Amino acid sequence: MSISANKDAETMDHMNITARVAFQGERGAFSEEAAVKLLGDQIRLVPRPTFESLFTAIDERAADFLLAPVENSLAGSVHRTYDLLLESSLHISGEVVIPIAHFLIGCSGSIFDDINSVESHSVALAQCERFFAAYPQLQRIATEDTAGSVARVVKEGDRTRAAIAGIRAAELYRGVVLREHLEDHPNNYTRFVLLTATSDMKPGANKLSLVFKLPHKGGALYHALEPFAKRGIDLVRIESRPIKGQPWEYYFYLDLQGSMDDVEVIEALAQLGERASEVRVLGCYPAAVS
Amino acid sequence: MSISANKDAETMDHMNITARVAFQGERGAFSEEAAVKLLGDQIRLVPRPTFESLFTAIDERAADFLLAPVENSLAGSVHRTYDLLLESSLHISGEVVIPIAHFLIGCSGSIFDDINSVESHSVALAQCERFFAAYPQLQRIATEDTAGSVARVVKEGDRTRAAIAGIRAAELYRGVVLREHLEDHPNNYTRFVLLTATSDMKPGANKLSLVFKLPHKGGALYHALEPFAKRGIDLVRIESRPIKGQPWEYYFYLDLQGSMDDVEVIEALAQLGERASEVRVLGCYPAAVS
Repeated sequence: MSISANKDAETMDHMNITARVAFQGERGAFSEEAAVKLLGDQIRLVPRPTFESLFTAIDERAADFLLAPVENSLAGSVHRTYDLLLESSLHISGEVVIPIAHFLIGCSGSIFDDINSVESHSVALAQCERFFAAYPQLQRIATEDTAGSVARVVKEGDRTRAAIAGIRAAELYRGVVLREHLEDHPNNYTRFVLLTATSDMKPGANKLSLVFKLPHKGGALYHALEPFAKRGIDLVRIESRPIKGQPWEYYFYLDLQGSMDDVEVIEALAQLGERASEVRVLGCYPAAVS
Repeated sequence: MSISANKDAETMDHMNITARVAFQGERGAFSEEAAVKLLGDQIRLVPRPTFESLFTAIDERAADFLLAPVENSLAGSVHRTYDLLLESSLHISGEVVIPIAHFLIGCSGSIFDDINSVESHSVALAQCERFFAAYPQLQRIATEDTAGSVARVVKEGDRTRAAIAGIRAAELYRGVVLREHLEDHPNNYTRFVLLTATSDMKPGANKLSLVFKLPHKGGALYHALEPFAKRGIDLVRIESRPIKGQPWEYYFYLDLQGSMDDVEVIEALAQLGERASEVRVLGCYPAAVS
């Protein structure tokens, strides 16, 4: 890894090349909100229908970057993203955290009292249980995505239907906001990572994500953390995950404060390499400002 | 904590007292399947509509035990359960792991080709995306629970409607299984813990769950793990979780192999108590046989 910003969004902007950023979902999705928060609104947004098609977007030359959710404050890690990231050769070059706020959105002219059914992604519906408990007459229709539901409700113009999505979808499709903040928990936020094909490190990179594998044996994790602890390197996050089909081995996801410019970090990683198998640095990038 | 089985299900059985086990959902839910796998079918099942009402079931003398999901192999930790467990004074006295297999269930006389709409809990619908992608004509209705959807579909007898739930719900409500294994991922399993009011330890207890809080500072976790590592105590699981409203402090969920009978475990916990704040042993119990 070397410091070089040749392919990053800022440089592309200076060169008048519009960075193309792929995300899962339709235009107006929370991932799109995250992409704009991280890179500004001069990017070209590339919606992809599924996680699988998201992760092939760079290989297929459909995008320069892709943005994928890794962690939700309520639902925990998005293991699907980690699985696809580990199968790929992509690198994390940035991160962004956005609050997940759900809005009830109808078509032009609609009012709340006329709504009979509400459509949205099943996970979004599940995050608004208090709202539905208060209005048991509302039928919940599960769909592929939040923003696409708004697009359909607005296009079809049926005043008895509404959708649940973020505010960006309401604005994009010119829907009418009928209720705000339907989410059950105010501390609902999602962390996304920006992935690229190159391992170039952005200026200001101060956070490092890695994955390693450890045998299931007493003291293995302690021994693996020692190289970081004795150099005073801060851990920001740790999670163990059993490996499918290998009952007594674990992956560990580790985020730490540090940069690949720092010789202490390099030394600690080298030492970890002697103690763990399959150490992989997923990326070194500027930490999100929260 | 002392070894005593006074209040455990086995002893209650010997005394001809039927243990009452509360779970979230309706009769036939996955939690019920887990309860029966762990305690046998001689228990009295106490369905509770919400997680909140589940956690008050023992205090309200509606149940002797409660069973709550803590971890799904695809979706990660069930933070809601940890939050409610930490707010309560309940103890973990057992665990069980069950595979989550989804079935399409119709009313008597129904056939797959006549089905127009499918109802289930939103999370179950989300776990069957490949099935719905293959049959885009099926409308997905999100409901409060899986088993309750089967109950309604069977009771109302509409041959155009089906529900998604576990096989137990099909048997209980005498539904017709129209399709098997709709789940996207075969490695979909959920771990549940059995909670009780007393901290009595069951014979054969060999796993210990604890939560502790650490300041965000270099080496803090390493230092916290040392007491276990130097005694050769195996860690089974670790996860960090940011504390709401306390940006630089973390909870750590730790599962380890060991018993409160083992003096080395007691010593390690005592030493952890000097290095971490708010150490809480959630329970010591027999590990699930997988």
